[in-house]
Amino acid sequence: MASIFTKIILGEIPCFKIAEDEFFIAFLDVNPNSKGHTLCVPKKEINKLFDLDEETYMGLMVFSRKVAKALEKAVECKRVGVAVVGLEVPHVHVHLIPLNEMKEMTFQHKVSMTSEEMESLAKRVQLFLE
Amino acid sequence: MASIFTKIILGEIPCFKIAEDEFFIAFLDVNPNSKGHTLCVPKKEINKLFDLDEETYMGLMVFSRKVAKALEKAVECKRVGVAVVGLEVPHVHVHLIPLNEMKEMTFQHKVSMTSEEMESLAKRVQLFLE
Repeated sequence: MASIFTKIILGEIPCFKIAEDEFFIAFLDVNPNSKGHTLCVPKKEINKLFDLDEETYMGLMVFSRKVAKALEKAVECKRVGVAVVGLEVPHVHVHLIPLNEMKEMTFQHKVSMTSEEMESLAKRVQLFLE
Repeated sequence: MASIFTKIILGEIPCFKIAEDEFFIAFLDVNPNSKGHTLCVPKKEINKLFDLDEETYMGLMVFSRKVAKALEKAVECKRVGVAVVGLEVPHVHVHLIPLNEMKEMTFQHKVSMTSEEMESLAKRVQLFLE
């Protein structure tokens, strides 16, 4: 069965998209640890980060860096944190989390945002993509 | 003042080393989230991951992948998680955390290990480096 991220990639489930190219997509996490929490996902549905072939892994890291640099400019934060876990959705995803406090890295602290806020934030981050 | 990681790189503070090359070093975290929790650090002392120049950033990701693949073979875990935070030590470090449960990603759950266990584990991981 296709993962929820594959459904997003196929357009079957909507998302607040930040960036997309031939191989990768970035969109806002709908249950964010902090405002601007973004997921970067390879279109190829692979379960574990270190099982990606080296080219896809490196491509994902370059893509994530580009998105993170835009997030650092678009969102007020001390820095953008990174997490790759994957115990829930078996499709590689890099969490980019704008951080002001350690609790935003724990996945136990969530913020709520309206759809309008999410859409407006996604557009704002896009402005800073290089 | 040199960061604690620079002191480790210079050999002024001991560590349980996993791997080292001209630009990067990997050693066991002394306050691990789980057994095998490892830090991958660029020798250049830069505060934030996304401020690394692209070559160093990519080099760090390749180096971390090599260490993570060895950890996945050496330590019993579902997968190796990744975290980059840096709110405490202002010197880039990639956490590689062997995961069986989500709580091991929160930095609120710690395991205690003796020096002998740490040393023996570091040697075991080295055996799986390619």
